[in-house]
Amino acid sequence: MSFLPDELADLGTFAHKLADAARAETLTRFRQGVSIVNKLEQSASNEFDPVTDADREGERVVRALIETVFPDHGVLGEEFEERKGASPWRWVLDPVDGTRAFMCGTPTWTTLIGLEYEDEPVLGLIDQPFTDERWIGFGGGVEYRRAGETRPAQTSGLGDLSQARISTTDPLEAGYFTQDEAAAYARIAAASCVARFSMDAYAYALLALGEIDIVLETCLKHHDYAALIPIVEGAGGVVTNWRGEKPGADDRGEIIAAATPKLHEAALALIAG
Amino acid sequence: MSFLPDELADLGTFAHKLADAARAETLTRFRQGVSIVNKLEQSASNEFDPVTDADREGERVVRALIETVFPDHGVLGEEFEERKGASPWRWVLDPVDGTRAFMCGTPTWTTLIGLEYEDEPVLGLIDQPFTDERWIGFGGGVEYRRAGETRPAQTSGLGDLSQARISTTDPLEAGYFTQDEAAAYARIAAASCVARFSMDAYAYALLALGEIDIVLETCLKHHDYAALIPIVEGAGGVVTNWRGEKPGADDRGEIIAAATPKLHEAALALIAG
Repeated sequence: MSFLPDELADLGTFAHKLADAARAETLTRFRQGVSIVNKLEQSASNEFDPVTDADREGERVVRALIETVFPDHGVLGEEFEERKGASPWRWVLDPVDGTRAFMCGTPTWTTLIGLEYEDEPVLGLIDQPFTDERWIGFGGGVEYRRAGETRPAQTSGLGDLSQARISTTDPLEAGYFTQDEAAAYARIAAASCVARFSMDAYAYALLALGEIDIVLETCLKHHDYAALIPIVEGAGGVVTNWRGEKPGADDRGEIIAAATPKLHEAALALIAG
Repeated sequence: MSFLPDELADLGTFAHKLADAARAETLTRFRQGVSIVNKLEQSASNEFDPVTDADREGERVVRALIETVFPDHGVLGEEFEERKGASPWRWVLDPVDGTRAFMCGTPTWTTLIGLEYEDEPVLGLIDQPFTDERWIGFGGGVEYRRAGETRPAQTSGLGDLSQARISTTDPLEAGYFTQDEAAAYARIAAASCVARFSMDAYAYALLALGEIDIVLETCLKHHDYAALIPIVEGAGGVVTNWRGEKPGADDRGEIIAAATPKLHEAALALIAG
């Protein structure tokens, strides 16, 4: 790394501005009658991959701000083509993570803003506009902000799998779990305390707040997890793929986050069989 | 029925006071490190039925208010023994519906307050304290209140099952679905657009707001659904058991709510096979 802490702090302030701008596009469209387009409708696939105006306009406004203020930064977003930058900084955006949640009016979709330096995640922001909650992680710490008040966020510190609260998003969706993945999930579910579903990235935010202890998912793309890494790690947790490698090191987009190294190790052992 | 509309409206005002009192006990305990007791730990069953201080203290304060102001009203709650009343009015309480959600920090648990007259549901209130959302239904209408603003609530009016957003709570929990119920759920899921899980009674509240179109669940007890009926029906929806009968008319606690009679009929046909 060859940037100064102050530069990262300034980019953190800028990330808040990006999230504020996204809110103006997403929150105003939430629960207003969603116009849904299936991105894959014209493709050979039968999969359902919905996108709304909130996704598109949210990303458009964030991209415009980055291009104006930092024209040399790269931008990778869910909805539009990657813009290569001349500098080592790259923003990774998901304007509405949890489009299905957004479509169903649940207050658990989020806006994800990640920042990488030379391809390493150095800053992450998770925003939930309806509940007015925001997590930002960089420099080894995480700040949780709600209704003007801020406090540091930390995982639960739990090491005992039998007490763990776990979460995954789409356990019954075709293609989400392979047979092996479903079996691995079932082993962890059987060994843990309670499971909640359909939370998308909000589950990682709750993990960073000490409210969920393990999140395990599949089919995540770079824009789905880049912003989560500095938040989970900065709150004391661990995030890898299901083999304990760096997120993205497999083709299935398998991600597991745990409150502590000990819990992570116990979960990985059960995944292995 | 032999009560006056004004009397019901006054009881609606009182229901708001009950919900306010419950908030003071539940919201202050939310995300504060939950002390969980498994109600079934000392029983022969292996089931997990968690209860927290928020459940107990929430119900205690609501009961105390009812006993003070309406000593002749009956009270049926989740956490304590039924109190028989001398009058035809009976309150049905679930201080924290979605204790698992509460344990996991998700903003989708609710407080349920129902009111029956001669065993018929005549008023229902659903409160989500963290998002500051409240639904109250009586006299054929539903009011949605958030952050001081109120508006009428109505279902989506959707009749086309292929466009439906569906929800159920615990699809992977042992005992939640029998094999037949799981197959029926799968038929509806395959015929509809999108599914979200783990929402408990909040799913019915979103249905009454036009954001979810079908909710189907099992294992519901009287205190889980009594408050929902005037809200779903008052918003234009239909709520029955899975055979189209009155909620509670079966032993499995099967409940289905739909945005319109047409959608309800289509779903019941798929449940039948």
